Amino acid sequence: MDMKHSRLFSPLQIGSLTLSNRVGMAPMSMDYEAADGTVPKRLADVFVRRAEGGTGYVMIDAVTIDSKYPYMGNTTALDRDELVPQFKEFADRVKEAGSTLVPQIIHPGPESVCGYRHIAPLGPSANTNANCHVSRSISIDEIHDIIKQFGQAARRAEEAGCGAISLHCAHAYMLPGSFLSPLRNKRMDEYGGSLDNRARFVIEMIEEARRNVSPDFPIFLRISGDERMVGGNSLEDMLYLAPKFEAAGVSMLEVSGGTQYEGLEHIIPCQNKSRGVNVYEASEIKKVVGIPVYAVGKINDIRYAAEIVERGLVDGVAMGRPLLADPDLCKKAVEGQFDEITPCASCGGSCISRSEAAPECHCHINPRLGREYEFPDVPAEKSKKVLVIGAGPGGMMAAVTAAERGHDVTVWEADDKIGGQLNLAVVAPGKQEMTQWMVHLNYRAKKAGVKFEFNKEATAEDVKALAPEAVIVATGAKPLVPPIKGTQDYPVLTAHDFLRGKFVIPKGRVCVLGGGAVACETAETALENARPNSYTRGYDASIGDIDVTLVEMLPQLLTGVCAPNREPLIRKLKSKGVHINVNTKIMEVTDHEVKVQRQDGTQEWLEGFDYVLFGLGSRNYDPLSETLKEFVPEVHVIGDAVRARQASYAMWEGFEKAYSL
Amino acid sequence: MDMKHSRLFSPLQIGSLTLSNRVGMAPMSMDYEAADGTVPKRLADVFVRRAEGGTGYVMIDAVTIDSKYPYMGNTTALDRDELVPQFKEFADRVKEAGSTLVPQIIHPGPESVCGYRHIAPLGPSANTNANCHVSRSISIDEIHDIIKQFGQAARRAEEAGCGAISLHCAHAYMLPGSFLSPLRNKRMDEYGGSLDNRARFVIEMIEEARRNVSPDFPIFLRISGDERMVGGNSLEDMLYLAPKFEAAGVSMLEVSGGTQYEGLEHIIPCQNKSRGVNVYEASEIKKVVGIPVYAVGKINDIRYAAEIVERGLVDGVAMGRPLLADPDLCKKAVEGQFDEITPCASCGGSCISRSEAAPECHCHINPRLGREYEFPDVPAEKSKKVLVIGAGPGGMMAAVTAAERGHDVTVWEADDKIGGQLNLAVVAPGKQEMTQWMVHLNYRAKKAGVKFEFNKEATAEDVKALAPEAVIVATGAKPLVPPIKGTQDYPVLTAHDFLRGKFVIPKGRVCVLGGGAVACETAETALENARPNSYTRGYDASIGDIDVTLVEMLPQLLTGVCAPNREPLIRKLKSKGVHINVNTKIMEVTDHEVKVQRQDGTQEWLEGFDYVLFGLGSRNYDPLSETLKEFVPEVHVIGDAVRARQASYAMWEGFEKAYSL
Amino acid sequence: MDMKHSRLFSPLQIGSLTLSNRVGMAPMSMDYEAADGTVPKRLADVFVRRAEGGTGYVMIDAVTIDSKYPYMGNTTALDRDELVPQFKEFADRVKEAGSTLVPQIIHPGPESVCGYRHIAPLGPSANTNANCHVSRSISIDEIHDIIKQFGQAARRAEEAGCGAISLHCAHAYMLPGSFLSPLRNKRMDEYGGSLDNRARFVIEMIEEARRNVSPDFPIFLRISGDERMVGGNSLEDMLYLAPKFEAAGVSMLEVSGGTQYEGLEHIIPCQNKSRGVNVYEASEIKKVVGIPVYAVGKINDIRYAAEIVERGLVDGVAMGRPLLADPDLCKKAVEGQFDEITPCASCGGSCISRSEAAPECHCHINPRLGREYEFPDVPAEKSKKVLVIGAGPGGMMAAVTAAERGHDVTVWEADDKIGGQLNLAVVAPGKQEMTQWMVHLNYRAKKAGVKFEFNKEATAEDVKALAPEAVIVATGAKPLVPPIKGTQDYPVLTAHDFLRGKFVIPKGRVCVLGGGAVACETAETALENARPNSYTRGYDASIGDIDVTLVEMLPQLLTGVCAPNREPLIRKLKSKGVHINVNTKIMEVTDHEVKVQRQDGTQEWLEGFDYVLFGLGSRNYDPLSETLKEFVPEVHVIGDAVRARQASYAMWEGFEKAYSL
Repeated sequence: MDMKHSRLFSPLQIGSLTLSNRVGMAPMSMDYEAADGTVPKRLADVFVRRAEGGTGYVMIDAVTIDSKYPYMGNTTALDRDELVPQFKEFADRVKEAGSTLVPQIIHPGPESVCGYRHIAPLGPSANTNANCHVSRSISIDEIHDIIKQFGQAARRAEEAGCGAISLHCAHAYMLPGSFLSPLRNKRMDEYGGSLDNRARFVIEMIEEARRNVSPDFPIFLRISGDERMVGGNSLEDMLYLAPKFEAAGVSMLEVSGGTQYEGLEHIIPCQNKSRGVNVYEASEIKKVVGIPVYAVGKINDIRYAAEIVERGLVDGVAMGRPLLADPDLCKKAVEGQFDEITPCASCGGSCISRSEAAPECHCHINPRLGREYEFPDVPAEKSKKVLVIGAGPGGMMAAVTAAERGHDVTVWEADDKIGGQLNLAVVAPGKQEMTQWMVHLNYRAKKAGVKFEFNKEATAEDVKALAPEAVIVATGAKPLVPPIKGTQDYPVLTAHDFLRGKFVIPKGRVCVLGGGAVACETAETALENARPNSYTRGYDASIGDIDVTLVEMLPQLLTGVCAPNREPLIRKLKSKGVHINVNTKIMEVTDHEVKVQRQDGTQEWLEGFDYVLFGLGSRNYDPLSETLKEFVPEVHVIGDAVRARQASYAMWEGFEKAYSL
Repeated sequence: MDMKHSRLFSPLQIGSLTLSNRVGMAPMSMDYEAADGTVPKRLADVFVRRAEGGTGYVMIDAVTIDSKYPYMGNTTALDRDELVPQFKEFADRVKEAGSTLVPQIIHPGPESVCGYRHIAPLGPSANTNANCHVSRSISIDEIHDIIKQFGQAARRAEEAGCGAISLHCAHAYMLPGSFLSPLRNKRMDEYGGSLDNRARFVIEMIEEARRNVSPDFPIFLRISGDERMVGGNSLEDMLYLAPKFEAAGVSMLEVSGGTQYEGLEHIIPCQNKSRGVNVYEASEIKKVVGIPVYAVGKINDIRYAAEIVERGLVDGVAMGRPLLADPDLCKKAVEGQFDEITPCASCGGSCISRSEAAPECHCHINPRLGREYEFPDVPAEKSKKVLVIGAGPGGMMAAVTAAERGHDVTVWEADDKIGGQLNLAVVAPGKQEMTQWMVHLNYRAKKAGVKFEFNKEATAEDVKALAPEAVIVATGAKPLVPPIKGTQDYPVLTAHDFLRGKFVIPKGRVCVLGGGAVACETAETALENARPNSYTRGYDASIGDIDVTLVEMLPQLLTGVCAPNREPLIRKLKSKGVHINVNTKIMEVTDHEVKVQRQDGTQEWLEGFDYVLFGLGSRNYDPLSETLKEFVPEVHVIGDAVRARQASYAMWEGFEKAYSL
Repeated sequence: MDMKHSRLFSPLQIGSLTLSNRVGMAPMSMDYEAADGTVPKRLADVFVRRAEGGTGYVMIDAVTIDSKYPYMGNTTALDRDELVPQFKEFADRVKEAGSTLVPQIIHPGPESVCGYRHIAPLGPSANTNANCHVSRSISIDEIHDIIKQFGQAARRAEEAGCGAISLHCAHAYMLPGSFLSPLRNKRMDEYGGSLDNRARFVIEMIEEARRNVSPDFPIFLRISGDERMVGGNSLEDMLYLAPKFEAAGVSMLEVSGGTQYEGLEHIIPCQNKSRGVNVYEASEIKKVVGIPVYAVGKINDIRYAAEIVERGLVDGVAMGRPLLADPDLCKKAVEGQFDEITPCASCGGSCISRSEAAPECHCHINPRLGREYEFPDVPAEKSKKVLVIGAGPGGMMAAVTAAERGHDVTVWEADDKIGGQLNLAVVAPGKQEMTQWMVHLNYRAKKAGVKFEFNKEATAEDVKALAPEAVIVATGAKPLVPPIKGTQDYPVLTAHDFLRGKFVIPKGRVCVLGGGAVACETAETALENARPNSYTRGYDASIGDIDVTLVEMLPQLLTGVCAPNREPLIRKLKSKGVHINVNTKIMEVTDHEVKVQRQDGTQEWLEGFDYVLFGLGSRNYDPLSETLKEFVPEVHVIGDAVRARQASYAMWEGFEKAYSL
């Protein structure tokens, strides 16, 4: 498709706002916010950088109308007039960069983390939020006050030069969304009961916002086209309400789907969801309103976005994570440079998952996210001869970064192909999209002149012969086989080798030791391959049913994996009858039994397995760096070669070390 | 929407019948029928009253063509000419009231209860019906005879002045429906096998009816747009047959869905189904026929009905339970008085459930159902000062009824809001619709001048000070904590307090004692809130997986709950891994263990629970009535304050007592 | 519908090819192929015979571009120029018969059985195929070579006079399909990653084929409209790619669905799938391309096919198994002779299932399949008086065959209806379609003058009195009650009698002995009838929940049943909580207990059953043949009367014996 003349990249007039194209940056929680509600430069840079990249509009997430009720730890605010000037600076930077800033005006309602500050969150009724805090059912007077706060925040947004505001009543989430949803709103006054009553809060919010901004100042509204939950709002309900939202003053509808608590996987679709999960609902809603309708939800390929707009299903698309991955997505698309676009694999690995160690939004494949202008695209002062050992995610990121900075880069890879351990991570159903990272880095590596040698196990002699000025050791990790009793006496099968296709499991009882991603995806893949007497050449008795047992030391499976990937996989394993043992230590193994110790100290043998597979993670593999340091000026060890972790760490460290050469 | 000029309230010509609007009363089993097949006044009144309320047509359920095979205990009939005159009286009353009577002409086939009279029900093949009676496969001669009986019944209906007849081949149910469905019809003659053969009985029935009525006398046909069952008829099959039904003489199609046995929840969608469950199928079928198409199935809001007709998806709607709840639904809608409409919450509580104690069709929110003219809307002879203690369902119904009869009514409520125990019943997913009863009663209470005092625990002194002439004690019930060993030694957690949000269950093993609605909905809600390391502020180890165990003394869960709500909830609990113990008595409890006794007398401790919740129902709470009787002229105790039962008893007793003041 | 003037039977121009109608014969693996890749007469006859029957085009399955990688044991090939002449003979025979031959040009890729010859199959990545062989990830050079092979094979097809070729990238199957699907393609080069990259192989294959045939020589492409798998391609993806396939040179799209490994039931929909499983996807794809779109997938009734084409949903249909059942399907349809059409019941019984005993494609209801011209439709030399004892599938096939050959045929049946044991096989949900065989044979029997006597248990005296010249004994089989300890001491209930409706199971714990189709369908039917306190006349405590246990000696349930029927039924039984015991021998029974022996020799009593049902198959029943041989010139025993087996053997033996009279 010729993007330049596509409908996606044609202008769109929404009230007073002329959008250069129909790609919007969807609101995402960055966790760079400031405690005082202002917009710190680091946060503003994220949006300005996407504006520079050609995005139609950029939407900043969760701008609260009342700082007393923070959404996250720190929450951007427009709840006081004194916040307008600094917000205006931000809006102006976005405007100068060619786009328009759209603040998502919210009151977090039941979702507020004020529970951690021993203030009961506000809600329509007593809802238990994701932090297990119970919200207080607000009075009708409080409702009227809060509605006014929305109006004031809208006014401030216009005064700050924003191009539009976005209100949010999707996902049965935040105050408006929880009033609208029968899953949250159990009131028995005029704001509860029927769909019309439950919509009253949202409609009054829109009307109040409309009263406080210019008549043609655009008000976007994010809705769930279908809450996809028994007892939630359905598409039928939204087809009934959409014209009413329009009549109340909404200028554009952004159609998402699902609900926040019951199925995070629906509102942030990851690796087990198809593309465009909400396009059908958006296209149906478009038929009952006269205003533009955007779709949001795993639209992670600009060509697909262009196609659904070209077919007239929707008027535009909101893309979130793809713009985190590549701020210049729109610019490159318009030029038809699709291979140049850094792809989002909807992995949710570091943009959704949060932990003590990584409390902010990051992106596996874009190390510059959140430090937009720290690493300018300029050649290194001095071009060096660089050797990268290992073509996994970390090694490839290092090689590309170094080569694009003008270094003379060679990559040695022991395997016959790039990808390293990522080749295991893409095997299970739904995980294939992560191959797109490697395809992209491979394209850039070739373009920047990186030389590859495969089936090349690096030795000190070889390195000496090459005489590189710098070596980046990205030799990754090897499957971990802890010194458990029996591992020396029996042949050890690893989950890694199974995922590599080194052996097959035609049928029988399988015990997978471990409960992380590798172990669980090994269980899933083994069950996917269970095709007893399928359409095969004559009935083959050697192929039959497969029964899987998982043994995990921790209290739960898939610890740290983001909920949209974790919960569906656990459901799938349970539905396929996998026997799940958590809080269970492995004491001893044979090739057919496993001795375990339960949380209460009792021990027992789990017996009768045809296969016992080790999926207990991996251990760093770095046989060379110390030796190399003896004769190579600069040696950097990155990623799993340091310590086995998510691929993100390998890619970030690969980038940083290569950039610093 | 302006209902007066809406398409829903525009006339519709169907053959010789001019309908004043496109709202029909769907056929429902009232269980007021007479043993001799005639239409008793009590039954006729139900339809006449809805005719007076402006309903386009009213359809009387299950009028059999052969009394030897009764549908229910008593079954209305048109199988003898001598029944025509009394049926004509009934039809004329409906006509005078501005509507038109449409008898649903049926032969119950496999569904007949004649099995209880040791007569094998008739069917296409040997089907086991809901009463576990096996039908006899009828011969081809018998088929031809029965087809003629349909023709005669149609003739009689026209002779009786009915506006149309409705034939029924939906739900794989009754003789025509079971011939049409591959789930029932296993014949190997020309009435079995292919879809065309299985449709032969239905088409011959239509043609015979058409031959025996005037050419333009309308024949409606109720079909399942999709039987929603593996091995059942699909929408594709109905799209193929619909034009053939039209060609055979059908004037209007009423599109329902599902099958009677396998999923009552589909044909009478209750609280876990979205609105308009069959609208999609109806709208697709409308595209392949030239006759009007009505949709039926949880269309329980007139504004939603108007919207789907306005959008041209369907030509009209059949509403059943909403017209049981409010006979004047259409009249009020045309006047735009939506708050006046008594809402149906699709609870199925007393219109679907049957038991020895309640063998007839009733309606929770409409105490006048089945005694339509017994309680005229006229002021009480003398206005009294009335105090209602308790703003739950019973108290609110009493207050509204009394105030609308001219009494000076004050309500004292201990809680800070109306609703009483209904506030617990609306928490679980899908149950929110019952809030609409309270929203409606609250609206009427305010309109009738009822004065409310909240956070007011009534005392004898306060009552004495108020000096009411009559008091209605509606103080409901408190959670029942039976004197089980251990309840005195450990803090007792109740399911009621959990549903109220008084405490949260972040993770762990939960044992809920009981197996009724409160216990099962507590289990469901606890599991809904299980959002291990969801998208929360950093990984919060205190939130994790939840495992639930239910302990029920009776042989099954949810005894007495109507099947459309009962079966999906049990399926859901099982799919979420709830450990269900029935026929299991509770002998002793601690805060972490429960000692149980199985049906065979064996006893065991269920251990390792983090929470033990009492969900064993509730016990009436009436601390005052005896004291009040000493100084208040009239004291009436109603609802759970008498004995803990369904909310319906509280509302009916509240109505009756208040009306009798 | 008047088929003669229907759109289905109107011509269709596709490039240079003029199709006489829009019915195509879908490609199916016949297993008649030759080792050297040529087309043996037996295989060619199948297609020529369907051409004679009026089929628009006939497609021969899996013609490989490289014999080194066979699809099945023997695989037809066009990988060498010397194969063209014999292929041309075949194409010419099809042309002379009024149709056109379309070879499906494939490279089996991961699906090749070369693994059995210790050659690693080829694929995009390391996939484990249905035979548990792991494919080798091919290099880019190998890709380019293989693409050229496709071009050469296309050239040869045109040179051989074929009307078109069909390429195949459906079902995540074979080389092109596995490159296209993210379930198989885990590459990290330009042929992996994004949807556009994964489509590169398919598009280059189309372009290369287009370059090597005339510009208007039609190229069909079979796709999965939706792979119906988490992590697979969705309809959204295919709507995006379809215009690109058209632009690359495709002339017609054949829309199937699903994937080969994970759900054979989707690509060959059998008895638990609705008709037209892929019609929706085909109709949506039709909206985004300008070329004709055919639907394939359980379109097993020509009237349904005509309807979806008439409604403009699709331009044509591909029918596979229905054309195996009746080669003259189109001829008879055009003449409106629908009763004459031998129906396909989508049973998959002998066209999909393969075993050592039956390694080829057969058809239950068409004994002539694969021996098309061996049994000409000509009268027998001498008309004989023939008695057939038993009106089950075998007896009916024998009676029809004999009568149509001019014999004077009488059938005696002990039951009151035809069908024999098939009456049991059609009871479970989804199995009803097999009634169509009996309806059809019954129609032909009456047409051919067969005389029936029902409720007639044949005795030697009666036979003597009739004095037939030939008797065909088709007395079938009786339930098998093996001499297990206890069977003499307790009343034995059989699964057969339950399925016949001889007794009902209102509630309780049920143990079904056996694990074959009868046992599993008895479990399924018992659970379908479990309708606790459904909408019945008052709450009937005698009806309640049902719990089922299966005890099977073999290592798995439903051994030998084709995967599309086997896997969904096992999933359903598991989802309904059936307790499945395999590798478990039955040692002893009472009416409430079963003593079993596990694989490890341990024995235990399974207790507390309310019902113990015998579903251990059946034993041949032939009380007469030996006696008859004393006075009847010709006595033939067929089907289960010989040995209890699939109904197919009864029908084939009935046909062969009757034809040979």
